[in-house]
Amino acid sequence: MPEQTLTINKTRLEERIHKLAEIGRIGETGVSRLALSKEDKQAVEIVKGWMEEAGLAARIDHFGNLIGRLEGKKAEAPVLMLGSHIDSQPYGGRFDGVIGVLGAIEAVQTLQENSVIPDMPIEVAAFCDEEGARFNKGLFGVRGILGKLEEGELDRKDKNGITRRDALLSFGCDPERFKESEYAPGSISAYLELHIEQGPVLEAKDAPVGIVTGISGPLWLTVELEGFAGHAGSVPMHMRQDALVGAAKVIVALNDLASEDPSAPTVGTVGSLKVFPDSRNIIPEKVMFTVDLRDIQMERRNIIENQLRKRLHLICEDHGLTYTVSEDTNSEPRYCSEDIMKTMRAASKEIGLNAPELMSGPFHDALAMSYECDYGMIFVRCKDGISHNPKEFSTMEDISLGTELLYRTALKLAVK
Amino acid sequence: MPEQTLTINKTRLEERIHKLAEIGRIGETGVSRLALSKEDKQAVEIVKGWMEEAGLAARIDHFGNLIGRLEGKKAEAPVLMLGSHIDSQPYGGRFDGVIGVLGAIEAVQTLQENSVIPDMPIEVAAFCDEEGARFNKGLFGVRGILGKLEEGELDRKDKNGITRRDALLSFGCDPERFKESEYAPGSISAYLELHIEQGPVLEAKDAPVGIVTGISGPLWLTVELEGFAGHAGSVPMHMRQDALVGAAKVIVALNDLASEDPSAPTVGTVGSLKVFPDSRNIIPEKVMFTVDLRDIQMERRNIIENQLRKRLHLICEDHGLTYTVSEDTNSEPRYCSEDIMKTMRAASKEIGLNAPELMSGPFHDALAMSYECDYGMIFVRCKDGISHNPKEFSTMEDISLGTELLYRTALKLAVK
Repeated sequence: MPEQTLTINKTRLEERIHKLAEIGRIGETGVSRLALSKEDKQAVEIVKGWMEEAGLAARIDHFGNLIGRLEGKKAEAPVLMLGSHIDSQPYGGRFDGVIGVLGAIEAVQTLQENSVIPDMPIEVAAFCDEEGARFNKGLFGVRGILGKLEEGELDRKDKNGITRRDALLSFGCDPERFKESEYAPGSISAYLELHIEQGPVLEAKDAPVGIVTGISGPLWLTVELEGFAGHAGSVPMHMRQDALVGAAKVIVALNDLASEDPSAPTVGTVGSLKVFPDSRNIIPEKVMFTVDLRDIQMERRNIIENQLRKRLHLICEDHGLTYTVSEDTNSEPRYCSEDIMKTMRAASKEIGLNAPELMSGPFHDALAMSYECDYGMIFVRCKDGISHNPKEFSTMEDISLGTELLYRTALKLAVK
Repeated sequence: MPEQTLTINKTRLEERIHKLAEIGRIGETGVSRLALSKEDKQAVEIVKGWMEEAGLAARIDHFGNLIGRLEGKKAEAPVLMLGSHIDSQPYGGRFDGVIGVLGAIEAVQTLQENSVIPDMPIEVAAFCDEEGARFNKGLFGVRGILGKLEEGELDRKDKNGITRRDALLSFGCDPERFKESEYAPGSISAYLELHIEQGPVLEAKDAPVGIVTGISGPLWLTVELEGFAGHAGSVPMHMRQDALVGAAKVIVALNDLASEDPSAPTVGTVGSLKVFPDSRNIIPEKVMFTVDLRDIQMERRNIIENQLRKRLHLICEDHGLTYTVSEDTNSEPRYCSEDIMKTMRAASKEIGLNAPELMSGPFHDALAMSYECDYGMIFVRCKDGISHNPKEFSTMEDISLGTELLYRTALKLAVK
């Protein structure tokens, strides 16, 4: 698509992305902007200014969310919400979250510039603490407005011992007044989020932009195998109870099971593994490892989980190992709204985009919104699938196309 | 074998083992007696007393070795040496090394009590720092008397920053006078060592005592695999370069290769493994692991090493990984003297023992002696193969039988 046919203002969007990247910048391309930090505050203030430039009435709520509102024809109609987050990982990139917030502001500003008056109010949200890097629990702000915070969340401490309560107070928020910032059930009609893919699929398909079909919730297991230690030189092979050999077979089994159907988006990963006693001449007695299993189809994921558990059992029997499996997280897949996907397909056709459809492995603020309203997500291609790293990179061309698709989708949803 | 037919004095041996276990005792059954520590000094002094009781002229040399000597008919004949060590791991057991030293004293005391005058001098050695736990390099004393110390060994520091030089000086040794404590080439005719097996083979064969065929030197490799990190939820299986899946396949391959010939004593172990970044939702980018491969036949070990390297190459190709292999140690197997083994077989027959023959995976002081003279080793069954642990355990019955075999072997070698 030739640049001049973009409705949105690519130059303005680019300038804002660059300016925001200066706040908490590390190195040439990195960003460290932990939730509720002084950098986060600075970022919220500057983005608030851009919201106002875009004609939005902006406020910082008691959860630390920055929310801008454009009134529609019907003041009481459920809100169309667009957003993402601007906090980052401690050693993060410039685009994760940011393009969703600045893209949403750009979309709404373009609506205004085209004198569009939406049927319903449109709000743009920069949700507080999506990343969870500081207090080790994310999606804070978006869960906050939906009344989904859990017991004890305000007492969680960062590594300097500061509680989330104190961090919110320093940010100018008042945890005593959370209720005022909550949204009543039914008051949001739909949620749209633009985000970098954080994976390599679009790059492999040579596509700048993709339409998300859903967020595949992970199953997180911790597996512990226990065998029997012994000197690496003195225990014959057939007498061994080597926990690492057992673990290795389970890792290979998971990889095989998740790869079995190449047409399925199933992914299975062992990301963390510890050996005890971890000495080169001692047969491993214990091995602890994690399992991360995701699929957009819960049924297929369950089948694979069962197969994995069977293999684990057999492998442990074979090697004289005992095992325990604990379930740390078990999220169900959350599907995007078919209606919104249809609207996105139509909008992408208008601009000559053939946007592939793909599932999202990572969480996003949209995950929490999925329990409240219809939602849709647009992914922008990112280089080598790298994210949560200063090397994270997307071109302005791709980001602009994603933002154009966001704009056109919002326009179709807002004006019937 | 009925106890009353033992020539050696089981009660005396048992008392000494118990007394020595009090020095540096931890818990009920453990021992912490690091080389050149104050506990080690105490132990050396008490064992020196027992050597003198046994009729030996005892001295502590400049390497920290305790050596007792019984003169033979020919004062100038090469020495028959018996020994082991009395230093321990920081969290060690009561028997490792100890039975070899106290068993040797018992054997020589029994010779004396039976008025045997050996053809050649017999010496009993408690070698300094076999374990290597304190300065991270073992077989110190035995290498010392053979002139095999390496550059810089005196400058090695323990974790409190004390150098081996200073530890030797506090022990009463003088590193400037090492030369005086060295043995001239050819001055030792044979070396015998009694030791707990530190493995489960004798227990599995229901045999109290075994005859060692040799010490299988290990090949130690460090393997590093490098792939590409990515979010566990967003990188499709076929696009992954998962270093841990590659490592798992290599671990399984090593286990298969080492187990292929069940009649061979080949052992292959991955004892230590580290994952980077070791996060449950990130595909492992790098994995480092160790390989320990041993066989009593160098040729068979080489074949397996080559097969392993081929598999590694193919696995890395398959998974898009790069790899490096570094060789940390490459020891050749050291065979026991066929003559000494023959003598041991005859001696074990006399006492009605059917002693199985087995290789030693672990090192012993005998490894260093093997480069100087003929050597033979006797293994005593130990419970569950456990060693380097307070749970290490052998019965006094088994230890006495091993000592009896040591005594009879020494007698046959000393009086022709």
